[in-house]
Amino acid sequence: MKTETVIITDVGPRDGLQNQPKILTTEERLMLIRAIAEAGVPQIEVGSFVSPRAVPAMAGTDQVFAGLSDQANADVLSLALIPNMKGYQLARDAGAKMVTMVLYASDGMAQKNAAMSMADAEAVTLDIIDCARRDGIAVTATVAVVFECPFDGPTDPAVVEDIVARFVGHADQVVLADTIGAAHPQQVRELTASLVKQHGSDKLGCHFHDTRAMGLANVYAALESGIRRFDSSIAGLGGCPFAPGASGNVSTDDVAMMLAQMGFETGIDLNKLMLASDLAAQLTGTAPGGRAKPWLQRYLLKAA
Amino acid sequence: MKTETVIITDVGPRDGLQNQPKILTTEERLMLIRAIAEAGVPQIEVGSFVSPRAVPAMAGTDQVFAGLSDQANADVLSLALIPNMKGYQLARDAGAKMVTMVLYASDGMAQKNAAMSMADAEAVTLDIIDCARRDGIAVTATVAVVFECPFDGPTDPAVVEDIVARFVGHADQVVLADTIGAAHPQQVRELTASLVKQHGSDKLGCHFHDTRAMGLANVYAALESGIRRFDSSIAGLGGCPFAPGASGNVSTDDVAMMLAQMGFETGIDLNKLMLASDLAAQLTGTAPGGRAKPWLQRYLLKAA
Repeated sequence: MKTETVIITDVGPRDGLQNQPKILTTEERLMLIRAIAEAGVPQIEVGSFVSPRAVPAMAGTDQVFAGLSDQANADVLSLALIPNMKGYQLARDAGAKMVTMVLYASDGMAQKNAAMSMADAEAVTLDIIDCARRDGIAVTATVAVVFECPFDGPTDPAVVEDIVARFVGHADQVVLADTIGAAHPQQVRELTASLVKQHGSDKLGCHFHDTRAMGLANVYAALESGIRRFDSSIAGLGGCPFAPGASGNVSTDDVAMMLAQMGFETGIDLNKLMLASDLAAQLTGTAPGGRAKPWLQRYLLKAA
Repeated sequence: MKTETVIITDVGPRDGLQNQPKILTTEERLMLIRAIAEAGVPQIEVGSFVSPRAVPAMAGTDQVFAGLSDQANADVLSLALIPNMKGYQLARDAGAKMVTMVLYASDGMAQKNAAMSMADAEAVTLDIIDCARRDGIAVTATVAVVFECPFDGPTDPAVVEDIVARFVGHADQVVLADTIGAAHPQQVRELTASLVKQHGSDKLGCHFHDTRAMGLANVYAALESGIRRFDSSIAGLGGCPFAPGASGNVSTDDVAMMLAQMGFETGIDLNKLMLASDLAAQLTGTAPGGRAKPWLQRYLLKAA
């Protein structure tokens, strides 16, 4: 039986760090990114080029990229989240290998998050894809609130299907984001099965939050549909600083462990991943660590 | 679309309480059971009739049953775990409506847990089923270590299939137990699909632990196969007192929330279930609460 590969993008250094109370220094951010890279995670969202006033934790992302420009980090696909063409130019100049633009499956979220309409976000993203192709930079189009929007309520799957159909031929990855962790696995299974049937699974990915404890169940549901790209966050970094105990992104620790147990190849060394997870907890003081960490530390890693 | 029903058995007052350090009084055990019943959970494993020397937390289970014999608790299906015919007689005399006997998918677990062979456990269970039929008491046959045994390693699915085939015609429920929380959802999906295909889903149930954080993913995988009976534990009560942080049974809190979100009918009132979960935490001092509890308390319950 051929071993299937799953590509994990660790979004902890961006989605995780911007959603926890402590602001890390450039050197601390680099330590974390290097530890994740050392564990073999193939794609890492290194930071974002957004207004430092709006997201102070992401100020100085250009310096983070500069710190990664040595030979030792040549193998990692470094991503930068960008909000617009200016952000694209900053990311390009900083040396990002891939940029992530956010599309929206609801107008409420587009307005609140980017002060744009859904259509404007799509138009800007198409312009950026044109530039990026000329510059040799890859582009991820992440579709936000594909299951539920905190402002507009449940999302019509047909809206998501239309957006994916418009972008899957242009972007290098199209990621379906359950931005607020509202999805249940049955709806994940249905939407992803339909999209994989129409477009294949090569470019499609999923991004889950563990807010309602269904993160791994949703990863499994998407795997069943053929999805082979997932965003996750080292040590489950993230969550809202104003809601103690609220969960962040599904943790890379747990996703990598489940995939290993199911026989998928991720390129990740679980022992080294635990070191990165420990570092995330140490640097932020709040990263919970994967939920299976006690078990991993007690049984799996001892045996390794 | 017809709403499908899922039957939850809360095993917290037995599997949960016997696996945490604090021994509750009879009155505390009754408070917890009543709170779970009040939330609408239809089946509750009230306790066990095993040696009080081996499992001190379960001493006095007859008094717990006595405390439940009033009219207010007439609707709850009260279960008792029993190890043998003597245990059966004690459970019958105490007023249990259903008894649970454990079968074994490995000889290592049968010997360590019950000092019996797999075959002896089956023979005793058949004798008990005969008696129970005459006494008007229902019987659950729970098959332990159906995916992996801590002593004998991975379990051959064919062994499980044989045991289920021998008991599904005799017992009222046959529960597949991932005793140590080792299963991943793909293997759950495969085994349950095969068993449902052979025997239908009426009598089959699953019992998962959240040790490796895959509890809800495994519940979803079994649901996909048609399984409609699940064991779970209020507040995720359980885990090993000697492995801090190790998870217990998948929590009733999270299972009931996921099922509600997926449109299944369980009869459970999530607001009242949270009260039972709070009580479990208060009484034991260690019950973690469902993993989605912060979200439930902040959003769902406020809206109710």
